[in-house]
Amino acid sequence: MAPSTPRVVVKVDLKKKPWEQDQPLHNRWHPEIPSVAQVKAGEFFKVEMIDCMGGTVKDNSSSSDVKHADLTISHCLSGPIKVVDEDGVAAKPGDLLAVEICNLGPLPGDEWGFTASFDRENGGGFLTDHFPCATKAIWYFEGIYAYSPQIPGVRFPGLTHPGLIGTAPSMELLRIWNERERLIEEENGVKPFSLCEVVHQRPLANLPTTKGCLLGHIKKETPEWERIAKEAARTLPGRENGGNCDIKNLSRGSKIYLPVFVEGANLSTGDMHFSQGDGEISFCGGIEMSGFLELKCEIIRNGMQEYLTPMGPTPLHVNPIFEIGPVEPRFSEWLVFEGISVDESGRQHYLDATVAYKRAVLNAIDYLFKFGYSKEQAYLLLSCCPCEGRLSGIVDSPNAVATLAIPIAIFDQDIRPKTQKVPSGPRIVRKPDVLKSTYDGKLPITKNPSGST
Amino acid sequence: MAPSTPRVVVKVDLKKKPWEQDQPLHNRWHPEIPSVAQVKAGEFFKVEMIDCMGGTVKDNSSSSDVKHADLTISHCLSGPIKVVDEDGVAAKPGDLLAVEICNLGPLPGDEWGFTASFDRENGGGFLTDHFPCATKAIWYFEGIYAYSPQIPGVRFPGLTHPGLIGTAPSMELLRIWNERERLIEEENGVKPFSLCEVVHQRPLANLPTTKGCLLGHIKKETPEWERIAKEAARTLPGRENGGNCDIKNLSRGSKIYLPVFVEGANLSTGDMHFSQGDGEISFCGGIEMSGFLELKCEIIRNGMQEYLTPMGPTPLHVNPIFEIGPVEPRFSEWLVFEGISVDESGRQHYLDATVAYKRAVLNAIDYLFKFGYSKEQAYLLLSCCPCEGRLSGIVDSPNAVATLAIPIAIFDQDIRPKTQKVPSGPRIVRKPDVLKSTYDGKLPITKNPSGST
Amino acid sequence: MAPSTPRVVVKVDLKKKPWEQDQPLHNRWHPEIPSVAQVKAGEFFKVEMIDCMGGTVKDNSSSSDVKHADLTISHCLSGPIKVVDEDGVAAKPGDLLAVEICNLGPLPGDEWGFTASFDRENGGGFLTDHFPCATKAIWYFEGIYAYSPQIPGVRFPGLTHPGLIGTAPSMELLRIWNERERLIEEENGVKPFSLCEVVHQRPLANLPTTKGCLLGHIKKETPEWERIAKEAARTLPGRENGGNCDIKNLSRGSKIYLPVFVEGANLSTGDMHFSQGDGEISFCGGIEMSGFLELKCEIIRNGMQEYLTPMGPTPLHVNPIFEIGPVEPRFSEWLVFEGISVDESGRQHYLDATVAYKRAVLNAIDYLFKFGYSKEQAYLLLSCCPCEGRLSGIVDSPNAVATLAIPIAIFDQDIRPKTQKVPSGPRIVRKPDVLKSTYDGKLPITKNPSGST
Amino acid sequence: MAPSTPRVVVKVDLKKKPWEQDQPLHNRWHPEIPSVAQVKAGEFFKVEMIDCMGGTVKDNSSSSDVKHADLTISHCLSGPIKVVDEDGVAAKPGDLLAVEICNLGPLPGDEWGFTASFDRENGGGFLTDHFPCATKAIWYFEGIYAYSPQIPGVRFPGLTHPGLIGTAPSMELLRIWNERERLIEEENGVKPFSLCEVVHQRPLANLPTTKGCLLGHIKKETPEWERIAKEAARTLPGRENGGNCDIKNLSRGSKIYLPVFVEGANLSTGDMHFSQGDGEISFCGGIEMSGFLELKCEIIRNGMQEYLTPMGPTPLHVNPIFEIGPVEPRFSEWLVFEGISVDESGRQHYLDATVAYKRAVLNAIDYLFKFGYSKEQAYLLLSCCPCEGRLSGIVDSPNAVATLAIPIAIFDQDIRPKTQKVPSGPRIVRKPDVLKSTYDGKLPITKNPSGST
Repeated sequence: MAPSTPRVVVKVDLKKKPWEQDQPLHNRWHPEIPSVAQVKAGEFFKVEMIDCMGGTVKDNSSSSDVKHADLTISHCLSGPIKVVDEDGVAAKPGDLLAVEICNLGPLPGDEWGFTASFDRENGGGFLTDHFPCATKAIWYFEGIYAYSPQIPGVRFPGLTHPGLIGTAPSMELLRIWNERERLIEEENGVKPFSLCEVVHQRPLANLPTTKGCLLGHIKKETPEWERIAKEAARTLPGRENGGNCDIKNLSRGSKIYLPVFVEGANLSTGDMHFSQGDGEISFCGGIEMSGFLELKCEIIRNGMQEYLTPMGPTPLHVNPIFEIGPVEPRFSEWLVFEGISVDESGRQHYLDATVAYKRAVLNAIDYLFKFGYSKEQAYLLLSCCPCEGRLSGIVDSPNAVATLAIPIAIFDQDIRPKTQKVPSGPRIVRKPDVLKSTYDGKLPITKNPSGST
Repeated sequence: MAPSTPRVVVKVDLKKKPWEQDQPLHNRWHPEIPSVAQVKAGEFFKVEMIDCMGGTVKDNSSSSDVKHADLTISHCLSGPIKVVDEDGVAAKPGDLLAVEICNLGPLPGDEWGFTASFDRENGGGFLTDHFPCATKAIWYFEGIYAYSPQIPGVRFPGLTHPGLIGTAPSMELLRIWNERERLIEEENGVKPFSLCEVVHQRPLANLPTTKGCLLGHIKKETPEWERIAKEAARTLPGRENGGNCDIKNLSRGSKIYLPVFVEGANLSTGDMHFSQGDGEISFCGGIEMSGFLELKCEIIRNGMQEYLTPMGPTPLHVNPIFEIGPVEPRFSEWLVFEGISVDESGRQHYLDATVAYKRAVLNAIDYLFKFGYSKEQAYLLLSCCPCEGRLSGIVDSPNAVATLAIPIAIFDQDIRPKTQKVPSGPRIVRKPDVLKSTYDGKLPITKNPSGST
Repeated sequence: MAPSTPRVVVKVDLKKKPWEQDQPLHNRWHPEIPSVAQVKAGEFFKVEMIDCMGGTVKDNSSSSDVKHADLTISHCLSGPIKVVDEDGVAAKPGDLLAVEICNLGPLPGDEWGFTASFDRENGGGFLTDHFPCATKAIWYFEGIYAYSPQIPGVRFPGLTHPGLIGTAPSMELLRIWNERERLIEEENGVKPFSLCEVVHQRPLANLPTTKGCLLGHIKKETPEWERIAKEAARTLPGRENGGNCDIKNLSRGSKIYLPVFVEGANLSTGDMHFSQGDGEISFCGGIEMSGFLELKCEIIRNGMQEYLTPMGPTPLHVNPIFEIGPVEPRFSEWLVFEGISVDESGRQHYLDATVAYKRAVLNAIDYLFKFGYSKEQAYLLLSCCPCEGRLSGIVDSPNAVATLAIPIAIFDQDIRPKTQKVPSGPRIVRKPDVLKSTYDGKLPITKNPSGST
Repeated sequence: MAPSTPRVVVKVDLKKKPWEQDQPLHNRWHPEIPSVAQVKAGEFFKVEMIDCMGGTVKDNSSSSDVKHADLTISHCLSGPIKVVDEDGVAAKPGDLLAVEICNLGPLPGDEWGFTASFDRENGGGFLTDHFPCATKAIWYFEGIYAYSPQIPGVRFPGLTHPGLIGTAPSMELLRIWNERERLIEEENGVKPFSLCEVVHQRPLANLPTTKGCLLGHIKKETPEWERIAKEAARTLPGRENGGNCDIKNLSRGSKIYLPVFVEGANLSTGDMHFSQGDGEISFCGGIEMSGFLELKCEIIRNGMQEYLTPMGPTPLHVNPIFEIGPVEPRFSEWLVFEGISVDESGRQHYLDATVAYKRAVLNAIDYLFKFGYSKEQAYLLLSCCPCEGRLSGIVDSPNAVATLAIPIAIFDQDIRPKTQKVPSGPRIVRKPDVLKSTYDGKLPITKNPSGST
């Protein structure tokens, strides 16, 4: 075996449930979850992981599994992995952990993924007021490319990345998280927010719960487990430790500089995406899959002080830094949709980038509808294809301006506005009206556009 | 003269004040502002324009001109330009106007620009609670490159674009604007917003005012002028007609598909930026300059119905569409800063992308501070350099995740975190502490990094 | 198993010799070599292959294996693979075979490769008159990156590709090859060539030989084998059927349109390169490795007539067409070396691009020598790193101008000429003089630059 | 005037003949041609230049001006420009002159260019045996884009560059040039070359001649002029001093490191190309135009010894080094044509990259012919569009492999081979047969594809 074959430090078995894995998984953040593996700085190693829904969403055309999804089990993470330096001394609080993603991909034999939106009552998504029902699209991979029987006419190379990668929080950081998130949930109904109606349909925060909780080597339903499960933070939002940051460009060759809050750093990762659009708008919106990462870590001693500056009342209010890798898919032509911070009712919001981005996305969906896609197809597509969401203007009161740029090359038709009449064949019709009126929470099955069966 | 020499349809004289130009400028949106020129579809033409502050900010090291800036005169636009088809028939409401930017740049003999932040009391900026004082940096251009005596150690190619380009609104659209913006201003103090403290320091909207108003051919202080000036919308925010959208990638080779609301479309443009970062965070944050555009227009008849979908209660609630050009500067290496929707006080906001982006920007500023830049220098630099602001995650309650990516190649030092100790020369010190303690609203004059004098 | 898991149609066992594989390999082109597998148009399948030297070059620091290499066994190809359409009808002479490379990479557990130059007496290389001795560098892969203990200070992402991919020739095409190549060998000594001295040190052609010959299912040393072995073309040069074209950009997402000369097309492939520079100058100059391809084929009926035009006396004088994929490594900064068609003796050649490229390469080697690399290190590096060789000017008598562009980011030091004195640490010295004087045909073993051991 | 407005050091008047310019031009290389201007290191300055044919080729549809072109006047260069350091001390032999191209473009009011091939008897071109007649296409510029009435259906952004830039040779270097080029011309008829038939139709070298000679400030027909004119090297080929290297990527933001052979460096430049393909195959094959350069120079003292290594018998046998700029047009999709070193008669050449590239170009021309272009249109198009010519394989005896990659986006139709039948409108027909049969040395005038008139 070549010295550059990575050592597999976390292995998963896709035939087993998340809680049955030999190396136990965890789906909460807590400093007391024990590490399941140890790596040395400079070592080249491999981590396997299951998908964000723990294997409960199946490769079929029914969205009933998505409809009844249990979000308390997300995300079943691989790790924690303890990192030590070349002399065996563990990473220490205050260090930075530099994690290089040398390679990644789907697990052999499991080369498919799904993009979904949840029911409004079950987590919803960015546009849940427009798309209240659970939907699902299956994607198959042909090497670097993905195509979906449910969204014909598109095929694109994946910008594959882990949606979630982070270090364990210290007890103090965990307390900060729990307090501020509890506060926002308690203020519900009292305090109007910029997202208005939407807000009332989605949970404001996802507080600790013992339901569905997995804590790795901590034996379930012991007193210790009960205590930790009640304290441990959910993995849904990104936070100071990295976590579910969903930065779609963290692909091959990227580097992530994570703050270290506990002895050994305790790196965890999961939620692999074959591809994702900026924003991951449908919530379960990447092309969700099982997968592997090949990594190398370095410890930058005292790196937090050297490179990070607290952005809040304590030294723990920091964020990771990232470097983008050199092998992203190249697209030279983009169609860009704009949104301003005026909502669908015509109401003006003050420099609200969230509202502006929502409008940009809605504009894009309506545009694609004109080219034969149903709105549900477009919603899922913009969640997972390599589109870019930008904060273009954030100062010109009262309108924030956000943009959504879509690479033109992913479509099998030219979706640009035509400035001149071109003699062309009959327009491709995908019967969106029919799809819409009979819409029952699942997308229609259609032919594989790339010709295989 | 070659047939491809563009016809100059709007000419400016930089020695004259905005209100003294031969072809009168305008700084308001109103359907009754008469066109100053006419072009045919397919014609290749040129428009000159003055800078966003109408020439009041000077090429010197004092920021007193910025401190006392009068924002009621912004932005003095060139136009309106009436567009007709090849048979002489004007563009009509409901059409789309496709505007191709064939070329653009600074005006010969005036190859410099400025980046500024206003006083908190005078418009402020995205980070006005952190940077309450007026600041100014002058940029000189060496062809495609810009450098600033006030921000030494950086030099970058411009992604030059018009900050503002749009069509005239109809009377009905104008009323919609005035109503919704009046509403937000009236709600001030009653209604808390996501930007909390910041909001109270900046105007919520900029309503019509006769002060500083320029209406092109409409003779000043006539009854007609009074009436229109009281109705005409300010140009500060981007809106349904395009306008001040500050999309930094609208450079050479881009196409803009603008909705047509009035007979002839009445295209206006201004606010040229030699370069701008996504968000234009310091408000007067591009590299502001005078300049020219070389354009070609096409009329897409009934294009609004064919390509746009109203995103609000009326058919006028639409947004333009854009295509990005093929000659942007290429950067292969980026350093990325992340922000989550937790503010500087540690308070949690619900999926608020504006707060998340603010934190990403503050993280980047603090990081650059560690490499020898004063925070004021970093603030202005991130306003105007070709950095990218992304909405990475907008669904993982309660944290929105925004990112700011900076191209590494613009610095004369390697700003990446170092994973290993490298034997290196003495660190470059730019005496940020001194700058900071003596900070008096202007940036220090330092040497041109590229060697010329 | 997901429907998008590729079917493995050719499997290799790296513990076995080339002639011991279960599915027999072949190292000659001949229409009568039977196919070892069959695929359908649209099917997603996988082909494994051994390295170009059949496993005889080992992962160690001695170049004695390269010194005594037997080139008659190169290249042991996987295939031929018969291609049929969706109705089971085979590809026919006159069709085009469109082969999409969906994915590729090294074989798991064998993630290393080598770059070598042969002895002048044993095949030599482009610069064999300057580098007459066998040399070898071992490369280890860390996911997308390669580094070499023998060439410290560089690390780069691979633009992985099959060096060799082609269809079987018809009997008529084979006869054309043998005749024209025999002619060039016979003319040796009579006819001066542009490469002058070099030419006399390298074989002019590599004619059919029974030595080392592998013909797949054709049983060795039978009369049939003898006959075919004497006729079958060597695989060294690229020809009308594709073959060893060494086009380094044929990586993930590329498409290759191959002419079909025999029933079933009979596709063969091999000679995987983790990376290669344009020209593959040291001859065994890619990062040679075992590997796999994931492919999809389509048959374009009568495509040769539709898309190709004969470039010679028969309809068979054609060449394949290629499309480049969208996920190449991006580099934004390049250092470019130029060569003109004047050789090292100062002699003028007439518009000879080969001489010009030789001089560009020599210029680059001498330049890198100044930065601490031995010339042997630079020679091997420029063979295998993602450098670009261009024909810049081919008309300005008497000088052809060729250029070699090297991406600057692959080095751990800034190799650009410095226009100003920068205060810097001590220059990195790699003791090239010592290396040179003690040069014994192998490169020195040095530390892994990326820190792992 | 801003400090960053470049000082114009060479001005041309397009209404005057080359020999009538106020600042005299020169079209020969000789150390005694006096400088016409002086610049300081670090100074930002501007040089204007006339086109390569000195204004004799006109903006019309007749190619008779090309047919009767006098090549002895090419190229009328602007300069020489003497370069001194910040203390006024001139650049010295042995220094390197770093020239940064900050900006460039056509001259205002003269935004057009031409691509031409000469008659076989008058200079010919790379494919003169296939295209023996003079042809001409006119290109008009719309900002960054060029289109041609003679080659409809294509439009592309320019990668504008000076075809020719160099320093003055020393007397010794000049003697080396004259000797080696005289030698090649004298050997004609005795010595067969790789280009066989072609060679006999084109001049082997272009030796000094007094005909058409311009020597700047040296007064014509004085004894001094006679002496220098007989010694001075023609500017056609690129040589050790840079010169006519035709490297198409030397565009905005590039740096050129030129060796200094005489006191003051004596920089000259000309032969502006709006765009050019690698190889500039039709000889007068860029989009030839008048234009301007905005430059900055630095002197690297003793840079020749520090960075260059002689590649021949004297220390003068060196070549410049280049850095590529960051703002090239981006294309993500390319169609690639291959050639091997077998010529059109079917004859094998030994590793001859020139023959291989010729075949790649012929393949591309024949391919485009199938899409409605005449072969003459395709020949001129491949001379001037931003296509890439690569030396893919140069070691696999006996075949060199060269490739020509064409960006797909420059065409208004999809030129890729189709793997499936698509329902499409009628194929665009450009009547190539008619064009061909009536071919009279000029290309047909057709409509401007971009719609203007």
